[in-house]
Amino acid sequence: MTVSEAKTSLKALQEKMSAYGHALGLLYYDGVTSAPRGTAANRGQTMGVLSEELYKLTTGQETVALLEFLDGHKDELDEKEQRMVFLLLKNIRQMQKIPMDEYIAHEKLVVEAEDAWHTAKESSDFPLFEPYLEKLFADARRFAGYCAPDKDPYDYWLNEFEEGLNREKADAFFAALRSHIVPLLQKVCAAPQVDTSILQGHFPEAQQDVLSRRLMAVMGLDPDHVGLATTEHPFTTSLGSHLDERITTHYYEDDFASSLYSVIHEGGHALYDTGSDDSLAYTVLDGGVSMGIHESQSRFYENLLGRSRAFCEYLFPVLAEIFPDQMAGHSAGELYKALNKAEPSLIRTEADELTYCLHVLVRYELEKAVMAGALAVHDLPAAWNRLYKEYLGVDVPDDRHGVLQDSHWAGGAIGYFPSYALGSAYGAQFLRKMKETVDVDDCLRRGDFKPINDWNRQHIWQYGCLYRPGQLFEMAAGEPFDPSVFAAYLEEKFSDLYGL
Amino acid sequence: MTVSEAKTSLKALQEKMSAYGHALGLLYYDGVTSAPRGTAANRGQTMGVLSEELYKLTTGQETVALLEFLDGHKDELDEKEQRMVFLLLKNIRQMQKIPMDEYIAHEKLVVEAEDAWHTAKESSDFPLFEPYLEKLFADARRFAGYCAPDKDPYDYWLNEFEEGLNREKADAFFAALRSHIVPLLQKVCAAPQVDTSILQGHFPEAQQDVLSRRLMAVMGLDPDHVGLATTEHPFTTSLGSHLDERITTHYYEDDFASSLYSVIHEGGHALYDTGSDDSLAYTVLDGGVSMGIHESQSRFYENLLGRSRAFCEYLFPVLAEIFPDQMAGHSAGELYKALNKAEPSLIRTEADELTYCLHVLVRYELEKAVMAGALAVHDLPAAWNRLYKEYLGVDVPDDRHGVLQDSHWAGGAIGYFPSYALGSAYGAQFLRKMKETVDVDDCLRRGDFKPINDWNRQHIWQYGCLYRPGQLFEMAAGEPFDPSVFAAYLEEKFSDLYGL
Repeated sequence: MTVSEAKTSLKALQEKMSAYGHALGLLYYDGVTSAPRGTAANRGQTMGVLSEELYKLTTGQETVALLEFLDGHKDELDEKEQRMVFLLLKNIRQMQKIPMDEYIAHEKLVVEAEDAWHTAKESSDFPLFEPYLEKLFADARRFAGYCAPDKDPYDYWLNEFEEGLNREKADAFFAALRSHIVPLLQKVCAAPQVDTSILQGHFPEAQQDVLSRRLMAVMGLDPDHVGLATTEHPFTTSLGSHLDERITTHYYEDDFASSLYSVIHEGGHALYDTGSDDSLAYTVLDGGVSMGIHESQSRFYENLLGRSRAFCEYLFPVLAEIFPDQMAGHSAGELYKALNKAEPSLIRTEADELTYCLHVLVRYELEKAVMAGALAVHDLPAAWNRLYKEYLGVDVPDDRHGVLQDSHWAGGAIGYFPSYALGSAYGAQFLRKMKETVDVDDCLRRGDFKPINDWNRQHIWQYGCLYRPGQLFEMAAGEPFDPSVFAAYLEEKFSDLYGL
Repeated sequence: MTVSEAKTSLKALQEKMSAYGHALGLLYYDGVTSAPRGTAANRGQTMGVLSEELYKLTTGQETVALLEFLDGHKDELDEKEQRMVFLLLKNIRQMQKIPMDEYIAHEKLVVEAEDAWHTAKESSDFPLFEPYLEKLFADARRFAGYCAPDKDPYDYWLNEFEEGLNREKADAFFAALRSHIVPLLQKVCAAPQVDTSILQGHFPEAQQDVLSRRLMAVMGLDPDHVGLATTEHPFTTSLGSHLDERITTHYYEDDFASSLYSVIHEGGHALYDTGSDDSLAYTVLDGGVSMGIHESQSRFYENLLGRSRAFCEYLFPVLAEIFPDQMAGHSAGELYKALNKAEPSLIRTEADELTYCLHVLVRYELEKAVMAGALAVHDLPAAWNRLYKEYLGVDVPDDRHGVLQDSHWAGGAIGYFPSYALGSAYGAQFLRKMKETVDVDDCLRRGDFKPINDWNRQHIWQYGCLYRPGQLFEMAAGEPFDPSVFAAYLEEKFSDLYGL
């Protein structure tokens, strides 16, 4: 095998991986958008077969030999090829450490756990979900042990979801946020409350759909490559490559703001993915590099841009056009205040920008404790309720509105939550840097996202997974990560909003 | 390898094939239902990779060795396993005869040809499509030569789409129909014409959707396993197995009958597929056995049942409930007559039950002539127009309403059309046999499809591909195929309708 032949094989390997990924992603997408209700087992059968084929392809002898050969000829590879080989080998070396039967059993467990979680959430029945969650935490500990025996298991998973993150950094990060947010929230709660009547009324689904498509166009999402569908829980997925991106939303006819911000949030993910350089399509470098950077983009569009005073000035006339009766007698200023009402609440996904990180903090502390063996899965509901009282001051009425609200653990994603908070904080530094060269507020007032998107594309999106998240962050932000920038942003915004 | 091990491998092989089929089917389905417009190339990339994987799996050395081993131990296989091995080996022996590069080039040609056909149809520009069609016919001839060098190429393809069919049988079949239909049609045209005003008006899509779901329920389609979507052209597909079936329709707000009969037609296909015995799921025996038998079921529900006087008596009150204003002052009798208006026309898919087979006859004669080298692709439009004048008495205004109307040739399906007409004729014999034990008209008047479905399931559906089409036909009909039964059915129905 020559290096040139090996490079051709490297390309073909990644094209195959992308194809299986496309099929698996589409099977999932179909299941939550269009499939008849009774077809999950049939889809599971196919996903099982294709996952196994993908596993064999990714970790097979031929692939390992190819990658090790290329790794031995690093100096003849360009920067992109080096990174491809690094990422593929890293993945293989981890996969090889997990016995295949345990890997398959885990995949099966996740399917069953998600099913059990759905039922448990509906009936607020934690004991039904508990045995699955026990096994999921056990798998997380055991798999971490296989992959990084010298590392703390939770540190292993934090690093998996955000390369470079560990408990020490996360502890410091959350402590910094907490010390700012908790007293700020107390002041906000003591201040006169904002009027949210502008958000109330009946907003028919058909008009909300018009609003969604309008927002997608304003944000610069290309309708030829980004689709919109409705699902129970909004999400974003790339199918095959960044050339086919799908976002979803959920319409509530008594609450247009819910879908409005789902579309902007998922649209931010989609902008990031579709912004990859076209040369990265069908390679492992295509799309976003990490959950933290991904959330930095989605929450950047959702909050830093989408909930800004300037964007509300653009948004209000659009809403007034689509919902003339409902917006009559209201103003852009009211809209801005109403969309930023901060208050302690129960549900993470509905939380405002200020309290959001406290919701994440609760999950971080609980995951950390369970992974360390300091907290039993059985005791999670009580611990959850205690921390919500302590950090947010709210009483959790039942597990449906408490420990069962999120699907992440059911999906086996332990160590994922911190990336949401990190992403929010990353965004504040990106915004500060962007404002050095782009008049962001002026763009938002005019509904012109092009200069903003161009900046993000140039500094973040185009690179896909070429750089490590921390490296990419510093390249784009022009400075090391510093959570106090986000804390200061919140302090300024909410002090102004509430006249503190 | 023991026979028992080989049987296990046979099961695993078919499960893999089903999984790839599921993925490829879903990619197609996504492309025509949900995907953003600019994603065809991205989807093509994935379909190319997965098709190649499926090709390798299906024709690979390991598979061939397995099947030949099992073929050598036929007496130790049960009836189903014998048929699986037979069908898989037959497929391989054909695939092996086509050089892989030509197979891949052909797949690519089909994608390009379908694209060219779309554009050509829109602009009625046959010369744009002509070079692709030349190549498609050349491939059909060449592939037939590889697979069955001793056979006439068109006979080869007729037999591919309907096992047992050849030009001799098709000639006799069409001659019999033609001799009955052409004079009958002349009498119909000379008789007083029926009033179709009941079909005219505005029928909002939302209400048509209600009608579709109502029809699916009445027909006995299980909503847990059969989905409905809208597409440009209605179709039916199984995804992975008969446990996930999708039908599609197209709504025209000035014509409810179009979608009404699309839903019943595609619903008939779906009933057939989903009626396979559950033990056949994830094997090559799952689903319908041939195009002819498939069309016999779809056209059975659409015409023999759906356009019967008895069903119209059930249908009218349903329509009156969903479209009260539009149906006011009309009657079931008017509906029956209007839905069965027979007249020479230009478009096959909109043709009535009487003239339908003449549309198919035109295509059959043209395919046969091109395959035999007696007609050049270049001369197809002129020949098409001449035959439409001769058989149907209509002048074709342009190729969009003529030779470019159907997608079949663009998809490489040459020899497919006759199965539509055969299916119609099969159905007449099934109905005659069914009526020996089921009071079909009574069932239809009550909207009770269960006894009808039970008969079809017992005699046809449950077997999947276990028997050859001809064998299955005779088992179900209780007699050999005889086109005069269909001719007599048409004669009786239309003589009565038009008072001849």
